[in-house]
Amino acid sequence: MTLKTKDEYIESLRGMRKRIFLFGEEIENYVDHPMIRPSLNAIAMTYELSHDPQHRELMTTTSNLSGEVVNRFTHLHQNTEDLVKKVKMLRLLGQCTACCFQRCVGMDSFNALDIVTYHMDRELGTEYNSRFRSFMKFVQQEDLVVDGAMTDTKGDRSLSPSEQPDPDLYLRIVAQAENGIVIRGAKVHQTGALNSHWLLVMPTRSLKEADKEYAVVCAVPADAEGVLYIYGRQASDTRKLEESQVDVGNSQFGGHEAVVIFNDVFVPWQYVFMCREHSYAGDLVEIFAGYHRASYGGCKVGVGDVLIGAARAISKCQGTDKASHIKDKIVEMIHLNETLYACGIATSTEGEKTSSGTYLIDMKLANVCKLNVTRFPYQIASIAQDIAGGLLVTLPSDKDFENPEIGPLLRKYLVGAKGYSTTYRQHMLRLIENLTIGAGAVGYLTESMHGAGSPMAQRIMLSRLANLDHKEQLAERIAGVANEPE
Amino acid sequence: MTLKTKDEYIESLRGMRKRIFLFGEEIENYVDHPMIRPSLNAIAMTYELSHDPQHRELMTTTSNLSGEVVNRFTHLHQNTEDLVKKVKMLRLLGQCTACCFQRCVGMDSFNALDIVTYHMDRELGTEYNSRFRSFMKFVQQEDLVVDGAMTDTKGDRSLSPSEQPDPDLYLRIVAQAENGIVIRGAKVHQTGALNSHWLLVMPTRSLKEADKEYAVVCAVPADAEGVLYIYGRQASDTRKLEESQVDVGNSQFGGHEAVVIFNDVFVPWQYVFMCREHSYAGDLVEIFAGYHRASYGGCKVGVGDVLIGAARAISKCQGTDKASHIKDKIVEMIHLNETLYACGIATSTEGEKTSSGTYLIDMKLANVCKLNVTRFPYQIASIAQDIAGGLLVTLPSDKDFENPEIGPLLRKYLVGAKGYSTTYRQHMLRLIENLTIGAGAVGYLTESMHGAGSPMAQRIMLSRLANLDHKEQLAERIAGVANEPE
Amino acid sequence: MTLKTKDEYIESLRGMRKRIFLFGEEIENYVDHPMIRPSLNAIAMTYELSHDPQHRELMTTTSNLSGEVVNRFTHLHQNTEDLVKKVKMLRLLGQCTACCFQRCVGMDSFNALDIVTYHMDRELGTEYNSRFRSFMKFVQQEDLVVDGAMTDTKGDRSLSPSEQPDPDLYLRIVAQAENGIVIRGAKVHQTGALNSHWLLVMPTRSLKEADKEYAVVCAVPADAEGVLYIYGRQASDTRKLEESQVDVGNSQFGGHEAVVIFNDVFVPWQYVFMCREHSYAGDLVEIFAGYHRASYGGCKVGVGDVLIGAARAISKCQGTDKASHIKDKIVEMIHLNETLYACGIATSTEGEKTSSGTYLIDMKLANVCKLNVTRFPYQIASIAQDIAGGLLVTLPSDKDFENPEIGPLLRKYLVGAKGYSTTYRQHMLRLIENLTIGAGAVGYLTESMHGAGSPMAQRIMLSRLANLDHKEQLAERIAGVANEPE
Amino acid sequence: MTLKTKDEYIESLRGMRKRIFLFGEEIENYVDHPMIRPSLNAIAMTYELSHDPQHRELMTTTSNLSGEVVNRFTHLHQNTEDLVKKVKMLRLLGQCTACCFQRCVGMDSFNALDIVTYHMDRELGTEYNSRFRSFMKFVQQEDLVVDGAMTDTKGDRSLSPSEQPDPDLYLRIVAQAENGIVIRGAKVHQTGALNSHWLLVMPTRSLKEADKEYAVVCAVPADAEGVLYIYGRQASDTRKLEESQVDVGNSQFGGHEAVVIFNDVFVPWQYVFMCREHSYAGDLVEIFAGYHRASYGGCKVGVGDVLIGAARAISKCQGTDKASHIKDKIVEMIHLNETLYACGIATSTEGEKTSSGTYLIDMKLANVCKLNVTRFPYQIASIAQDIAGGLLVTLPSDKDFENPEIGPLLRKYLVGAKGYSTTYRQHMLRLIENLTIGAGAVGYLTESMHGAGSPMAQRIMLSRLANLDHKEQLAERIAGVANEPE
Repeated sequence: MTLKTKDEYIESLRGMRKRIFLFGEEIENYVDHPMIRPSLNAIAMTYELSHDPQHRELMTTTSNLSGEVVNRFTHLHQNTEDLVKKVKMLRLLGQCTACCFQRCVGMDSFNALDIVTYHMDRELGTEYNSRFRSFMKFVQQEDLVVDGAMTDTKGDRSLSPSEQPDPDLYLRIVAQAENGIVIRGAKVHQTGALNSHWLLVMPTRSLKEADKEYAVVCAVPADAEGVLYIYGRQASDTRKLEESQVDVGNSQFGGHEAVVIFNDVFVPWQYVFMCREHSYAGDLVEIFAGYHRASYGGCKVGVGDVLIGAARAISKCQGTDKASHIKDKIVEMIHLNETLYACGIATSTEGEKTSSGTYLIDMKLANVCKLNVTRFPYQIASIAQDIAGGLLVTLPSDKDFENPEIGPLLRKYLVGAKGYSTTYRQHMLRLIENLTIGAGAVGYLTESMHGAGSPMAQRIMLSRLANLDHKEQLAERIAGVANEPE
Repeated sequence: MTLKTKDEYIESLRGMRKRIFLFGEEIENYVDHPMIRPSLNAIAMTYELSHDPQHRELMTTTSNLSGEVVNRFTHLHQNTEDLVKKVKMLRLLGQCTACCFQRCVGMDSFNALDIVTYHMDRELGTEYNSRFRSFMKFVQQEDLVVDGAMTDTKGDRSLSPSEQPDPDLYLRIVAQAENGIVIRGAKVHQTGALNSHWLLVMPTRSLKEADKEYAVVCAVPADAEGVLYIYGRQASDTRKLEESQVDVGNSQFGGHEAVVIFNDVFVPWQYVFMCREHSYAGDLVEIFAGYHRASYGGCKVGVGDVLIGAARAISKCQGTDKASHIKDKIVEMIHLNETLYACGIATSTEGEKTSSGTYLIDMKLANVCKLNVTRFPYQIASIAQDIAGGLLVTLPSDKDFENPEIGPLLRKYLVGAKGYSTTYRQHMLRLIENLTIGAGAVGYLTESMHGAGSPMAQRIMLSRLANLDHKEQLAERIAGVANEPE
Repeated sequence: MTLKTKDEYIESLRGMRKRIFLFGEEIENYVDHPMIRPSLNAIAMTYELSHDPQHRELMTTTSNLSGEVVNRFTHLHQNTEDLVKKVKMLRLLGQCTACCFQRCVGMDSFNALDIVTYHMDRELGTEYNSRFRSFMKFVQQEDLVVDGAMTDTKGDRSLSPSEQPDPDLYLRIVAQAENGIVIRGAKVHQTGALNSHWLLVMPTRSLKEADKEYAVVCAVPADAEGVLYIYGRQASDTRKLEESQVDVGNSQFGGHEAVVIFNDVFVPWQYVFMCREHSYAGDLVEIFAGYHRASYGGCKVGVGDVLIGAARAISKCQGTDKASHIKDKIVEMIHLNETLYACGIATSTEGEKTSSGTYLIDMKLANVCKLNVTRFPYQIASIAQDIAGGLLVTLPSDKDFENPEIGPLLRKYLVGAKGYSTTYRQHMLRLIENLTIGAGAVGYLTESMHGAGSPMAQRIMLSRLANLDHKEQLAERIAGVANEPE
Repeated sequence: MTLKTKDEYIESLRGMRKRIFLFGEEIENYVDHPMIRPSLNAIAMTYELSHDPQHRELMTTTSNLSGEVVNRFTHLHQNTEDLVKKVKMLRLLGQCTACCFQRCVGMDSFNALDIVTYHMDRELGTEYNSRFRSFMKFVQQEDLVVDGAMTDTKGDRSLSPSEQPDPDLYLRIVAQAENGIVIRGAKVHQTGALNSHWLLVMPTRSLKEADKEYAVVCAVPADAEGVLYIYGRQASDTRKLEESQVDVGNSQFGGHEAVVIFNDVFVPWQYVFMCREHSYAGDLVEIFAGYHRASYGGCKVGVGDVLIGAARAISKCQGTDKASHIKDKIVEMIHLNETLYACGIATSTEGEKTSSGTYLIDMKLANVCKLNVTRFPYQIASIAQDIAGGLLVTLPSDKDFENPEIGPLLRKYLVGAKGYSTTYRQHMLRLIENLTIGAGAVGYLTESMHGAGSPMAQRIMLSRLANLDHKEQLAERIAGVANEPE
């Protein structure tokens, strides 16, 4: 049953017994919870579009494992065309949801793990890759959402995992039995965790011998015993609980992050893909991060498209769209957004085949891509606020528009240019608010900063990947001088 | 009774019968309303500090009108030292409230009106300035908060007031009687309007003969008949209604803006300071904007100080404060923030005496100041988010920390560096969230963009004030060429 | 005789009788002139590397016209791989010359003309494309350098060509005979014109019916009668005439631009590829500009590599290379440089086949690419100056180092870190000077700003290519609102 | 004889016997040397304007030492008005010379030394301040130019002075006699050294006990025995040797830097103001740097005015001055330039009296000022190049315009908009070239980066001066949390 429909996906979640906490209380029916549902809708769009003939080419592909048509989110990339289509798929989904649709972390984890477990097997004689590929066939067959659970809480960042006062501040193996292992720890910033079928646990940093109990990769059903979810707050999150859809800005879609706690969770060997081989942890993190940094060159561009469209719409609504400075600001938004896209595309086309057959993006350009993503969305958002005007943050609530006394007055006074209703203006302002200073800004801005690693992580990678010695030699050749002691 | 105490101020508001709408309902007791109270607290700080011996020199001064000690917010600036102290007072208040404390618009309006009405009287033989100064004596005597009500809703911005399909889209005189006038219209983005004793109505743009019904300046008691207030929404505004103080970020202080509707409000002549003298409207707007653009070189710097402090605190909490890139980012925040301050100070010290005796800031530098304010807070906020890490937007609600099952787990896993509790981390992250993507960001970012005019307004002023011909002559002299036809 | 050697190329120029003016005098032997030779050396590198087995794959390809191996600079791109390899070839040449190697304008003109003449023939029944392809076979066979001569002098830019007081301010057809046409006008900023075998004349802007005499494309031998060259000055140009090679910074290579005047030059029909078909001029200019804007995503990146290498070398020389802020600044240079490269690559891989079979780059991304090129080299250069220190612009002349009294003193006092001689430091500082404030900065900075059109030209194209309506629809869909009058 | 005239100043230099090297040869008459004279002209402007009634208020003041009217460049600032007028004087001189006029380093050294020697005398019982003030009276009386000689060559920057392999890499005391000391070393980047009457030698960094031989401050006649000058090269420097004045861009004025070598120079005690008191070296350097960093908020603003004027002139010349993007770019130049000015002014008005009576600028704002100076001129220059167009770097030499065959053709084809001759265009383009990529860019750009310390030096000072603990407390108060261990 590959290629679940949107409805099948939603139903599949109903059957799971996850323990989820929100505002201090455990949630029974999270699928229909108004705070959570928009994030589920966003991920559901990855299913819906896979059945849309117009988008099928981007959304699906043929599995190298099974020969079946699978959702691209479960695919191991087999060529640079796959990598490019992935970026275009992500842009499309960003355009259709204007938020984080949460399924990329899993996809990027799959590809990273395939490469690293292949290396491990070849070098260590283990069988992790075959185990992992079996798991992947199952994921493809069932068209599952898998949360890549990487980021530990880290405690004092100047200390290594084993040096922390509390050994649990990084997730670790706490026991081993004949049939599997037991893990304990917490993963933070878990995008879309509640909407997942499985969790794919991975280490968050390179590890030394002393830290080897932290070198664990494994897959866990999302409702496994001992797994707890605590929902993360977002700006303006409770607007989703209000009756009005207008003030939410984006009433259908949204992202979410959760803290996921693993309280001594048992994992059978079948789902263990790394177990104390600490020297591979760094590679895994870097390769995953590489894929994920490149992915941002797609998804955030799609969200940017929506924000650019909203900025233009509000300028027309206010009668300022013909002003040269407004037009120029929109060009600047486009320019910045398309620069991100160019980075996403180039990172893909410059990708290369690895020994497992899975294609890896260009690591240097992936870091360049992400570093731009940590900057440009903030600039785009700031321009959008410039164009939108102050009403963006002073507009009364939609309920005021419904009040019989003041509603008509608000509609009278807040009317825009001919052809644009006050309601249209409300909707458009709330969308821009959502993306620049509301729940959408969590994904569009802060996640752009920190997702797949904060900017400094990209800078460190760049300094390593740039081959500075070669550049020095180029300079010496042009300068006509060799660096030799006198 | 000059120099009200904080408590006297609060009590003085209780006696007023304003009609205020919030979330579609009319509010009875707005003084104690949890959504509104923080903004009232912020303005109350302008009273509290005026009684603090440490800050008295900045907060108070001697009135040129009465010779009494008055709150500086009600003062007509009599020298550049007054202008400088104003900027320092605003920085202090920004530091103490981390939000917009709302009393500047009135202060800047007073000074602008004094200059312009003086000109009018001299040129037209009117008596607006003496009327206005009587009003000012009353304001000083009673230590009042006066809302400067300038921004009209504007409808289609490519049309002038009188060209709008609905003549009410700019506030106007709709009737005149022997004892006064009747005005109708709406003012938007009215900062602190609910916390004001009086409203000072002014036109929002330069006006031509055809628009002369829109050329009206007058003072109206904030609870005058026909005045309606509709509260503006802010990001994460309803967190103030939740029980927890932590998630608000800044639980004591906040700003607010309101739409204020004037439904045929009667104004006695005594409080009318411009009545159809359309050719003075432009000057008034420009001078007011000049003062207000300079003010941002104080208040936003104070808020910036808090954000810089929070960024450093969170870095210590996370054990990253010694990292060279973190230290450098904090230096960058300081640099940007102090550049704004330098602009505020220079705008003041370069101020000049006008014919009424009131000192006007340097108009060119005021626009330079504000243009930087439209940029640097966004950059500072983005750096703060960089330093704070992703937890800024994924932290569970404070209620989760109180849940008996997950609270202890969250405290265990989200612990920071030695000496910093998880609670401290929560508070600091929520404060940064407040200022960069929450209710505080409304004031710190979007208001920095649009308050006292959007950036393009400053650019237009700069091009007018820059004396480009002189610069061209300088260039020609250096180039050794005169611009003469061959 | 495809694939000329470097020496054959140089010899081929000796046979030409070009009329060249420099410093007010006509130059006899320009091939060996010390001011001009470095630019010739740079273009010669395009020949030299075509024979280098290591670079042959980038430098050469198989012609779709003849099936022969040709220099890629004479190739009509037949797939996106061709487009990508072009970018990589340009980066390589930038790395090997640290300057403009001048042969791209011809290459980009070839491809643009092939596309446009094909359209013309199909729509108008003309035979321009077959004429042009015959010319191209000759160019490939002889491995020629062809200067794309596009930019007119433009006079008053607010007037069209035919509106100018002097009709010659744009190049035009002044006469027509049975066997050909006569053209008059001047082309400015002609990169590498002196080093070319042929000139390919093209209009510089879109043209209307009234301007049709300006709609002319034709090829002219570079030493045709009536063609005059006036060499353009560059910063520090006469250092090439000094004996010392050190102070030049880049003593082997350099670019040049010339004013080329066409004093009633006769062109036989065989070499005329557009003759008054004014409606195609705009397309030609845009397509050429598209190609050329993309090319900058290669060549300037290569120059950037050299500058980054030089910055690192000088930091080691000064003992500052371990400082965290220096390392971070080098990372920033890399980041900016690779962003340009990513744009160049993506512009190529997103290219598409046109009806003539020639592949066109992605027009939107090409403009994005160039717009970044107008910015980042300036930032990279500024960082290089930061790292290099003030000695960059205060270093005495190399002749001082040779003076018996002060030479030893200078070598004593200006010594750097262990292992680095003062001579090495001199060379490296002079190279950075060359690229940031000397002759090299002409190509690396100012040409990056204006080559293939000034930034505003890219912005205008972006606004046209961005499909803003689609973005608005995306926003409306997310906002849940349709733009319909109430 | 206070207040020398311009001519008296020039004559005073003729009497000196300095040993100056340029291009490997010793120069006899440097006063009339065409390469050097423009820099002398620039400094002469500081004399000329002191006699101009229009500028006398800025250029002169009354000495606190003698009660006589003195040139402000020799003044010890006695109040903040002095500090403000200094900034305005520097802006004026920048406007009148468009280059570095070289006399500030001396002025800033005077004030720093007065403060530090006063502290020394008070704490150590020395008599340095009285010696120094005697010297100052002489400087004021004779209206001298004094070069502040601070920057040592530094060798390997990771080593302290006494750790260098060669002990002379920082200037030091090599011998002491009854009547004075002997110093040896070299000072680099010596702005205007050739045009000075005296050299004021100071240490370049804070020093420890082991480095105490390097803790020396003394005044030396500029033609003292053992002093050698080696002229530093600048971009396009030899254009000054060409006959044409056009191509120089700024034919009258320019700056210069020199390497000054002290070959065992004897200094009588009377002129020694610090001798081994190493613990005061750091203070001196910081205070000097503070003054000098503030000065840039004047001089570079004046040069910026010229560049803005030139950009506007060339846009009019090209018929693009009405284009909205050109107007907006000019506004941006103004904005950046005036921000620098605001920083210069605020640094002055926030200055404070020191114990010697001399006023010190605000140290924090001085570093903010300079840090902006390391950025904005580069941005302004880049915008100027954008406006100027490519002809900036491709314009033929002026000699070509004089050639009888091609001169008329160039004048025909390079004509601009109505009313602007080609000659005007030449001059204006050459001026912009001078300031953005020529000799003027040395002062306007690279010196802005490194003068008074490279940007990192300002950042280190800012982190020290920012009182981060106070900001943290502000944040904790707002967040409602105290930093206490759980």
